[in-house]
Amino acid sequence: MAGSSSITGTDWIAVDWGTSSLRVWALGRDGDVLAKAVSQEGMGGLAPADYEPVLMAHIRTWLPETAVRSVPVIVCGMAGAKQGWKEAAYRVAPCAAVPEGEMIRVPTRDARLSVHILPGVCQLDPADVMRGEETQLAGLAANLGPLDATVCLPGTHSKWVRLEGGRIAGFRTFMTGELFSVIAGHSILRHSIAPEGENAAAFAKAVEDMLADPAGLTGALFAIRASGLVGRSDGAAARSRLSGLLIGAELAATRPQWDAKPVHIVGSGSLIDAYATALKTAGARPVRQDAEALTLAGLKQARAAMLEIQS
Amino acid sequence: MAGSSSITGTDWIAVDWGTSSLRVWALGRDGDVLAKAVSQEGMGGLAPADYEPVLMAHIRTWLPETAVRSVPVIVCGMAGAKQGWKEAAYRVAPCAAVPEGEMIRVPTRDARLSVHILPGVCQLDPADVMRGEETQLAGLAANLGPLDATVCLPGTHSKWVRLEGGRIAGFRTFMTGELFSVIAGHSILRHSIAPEGENAAAFAKAVEDMLADPAGLTGALFAIRASGLVGRSDGAAARSRLSGLLIGAELAATRPQWDAKPVHIVGSGSLIDAYATALKTAGARPVRQDAEALTLAGLKQARAAMLEIQS
Repeated sequence: MAGSSSITGTDWIAVDWGTSSLRVWALGRDGDVLAKAVSQEGMGGLAPADYEPVLMAHIRTWLPETAVRSVPVIVCGMAGAKQGWKEAAYRVAPCAAVPEGEMIRVPTRDARLSVHILPGVCQLDPADVMRGEETQLAGLAANLGPLDATVCLPGTHSKWVRLEGGRIAGFRTFMTGELFSVIAGHSILRHSIAPEGENAAAFAKAVEDMLADPAGLTGALFAIRASGLVGRSDGAAARSRLSGLLIGAELAATRPQWDAKPVHIVGSGSLIDAYATALKTAGARPVRQDAEALTLAGLKQARAAMLEIQS
Repeated sequence: MAGSSSITGTDWIAVDWGTSSLRVWALGRDGDVLAKAVSQEGMGGLAPADYEPVLMAHIRTWLPETAVRSVPVIVCGMAGAKQGWKEAAYRVAPCAAVPEGEMIRVPTRDARLSVHILPGVCQLDPADVMRGEETQLAGLAANLGPLDATVCLPGTHSKWVRLEGGRIAGFRTFMTGELFSVIAGHSILRHSIAPEGENAAAFAKAVEDMLADPAGLTGALFAIRASGLVGRSDGAAARSRLSGLLIGAELAATRPQWDAKPVHIVGSGSLIDAYATALKTAGARPVRQDAEALTLAGLKQARAAMLEIQS
């Protein structure tokens, strides 16, 4: 999926560099997407010296042949983590969704690049961190205007964010996706859970059970195993029940944020479907937001802020 | 630790065969312990054909030299699981703590052995299972008499049991110990959690946090990681906090069972200490019970029931 076709008129380049994936866009002066590349070369598999050559392999044909000018490259996500390309220290919430000049400059060997990494956002009490989601929030805030809103960003580490007047007022991260992986893969439940398959009724029942008994998670997990041992074994239902219990636990903990309010869910694919279903089961009003579109919109906000500072 | 010294007068042999350990006692006619052996040859590492030779290596010198009579061997624990020596189907709760004749006979090559495995106990709704704990409960019920009591059996899969009139009225299992292992070993928290060390204040605070916000577990877990990233990193405190959150979640779910009531905690070592501390932090009244002593007492109850049936 590399952007191998040669293009002209690249004004700047937007990059979303996550733990397990990389997305790159070439943008024209009017903000139109001229080319796009996607790969699995995420931060998790890279050493600091790898970033520039990996990036160049995707964008070489998007750049002018000589360094008559450097092309701005704006990067969000885990490339700015301590173990990433270069550490971009956190901004501290409450803060604006879009950084205003806090990007860090990364030196490159190729003089045609002018790479800037966006900082993540941290919260001191309770301690919490995000890298990448703040850029999606900047895109959402640009779309919604300076409103108050509840935002859910499902994933390995699901985040619930309060936007107030378009700013990040506070947030909380849940280990939902990662707990699913380690419990399904490494605990005794691995014997009970099918590698794939779904059971919508089992999912909805699990969400309801957690909303009714929020303290019951670690007991409900063992019951998945026990159900199999006393004769009611269904690997797909067990898989959906584990998912429903963990997402239900997240909803039980965030009830004041979604009760009788719209929730913007930022995601894609089956994960956003699962959260939308869970929220509807709980009686909430999910509003789907496309994660990739918001990331690009947020990177454009950062580009605009950069131009404003330079002018 | 094998019982290699030759003894005479073995009336019967008691065996506690768990997932990761094996305990064997030679008992005289008066119930006195003549010899004892302990090993790590748990059910987890054995095939069905391994059980008799493993057992014989420990008890050979406890047996008469010729098969003038067979020596009863009474086994509790995971040796009776489907993957064990021979499956001993579950009794269904509510039920007596001591089985009354439901033991299964296991054929042996050595005619001097008369091996019986005690069944586990299951509960149909909500689904749950135990194997081995029912024997400790039989020992406890024999000591306490036919009373009502709340019993907590901490471990990989912690169990909370209601005894009513000395019978197993109902129970609930929590994946507490196993979740500690998979989260500390396989999730992103492995970067935050020291392999050992304790922090009593962090443990108590975590228990209190879960009692105050029972739905907050999966969010509180990620905060352990985030605390390290925003500069407050202490691997021993993180370890104690993870333990306190998981035990606190168990207490939050079982509050009606321990609130203003004594709780018999069956265990040993640092685990029983942690639960006793957590229960005191929560304002409950823990009563310590030695797990090994109760197991042996429960096996003696089973032996007595067997003699009653035979007479």
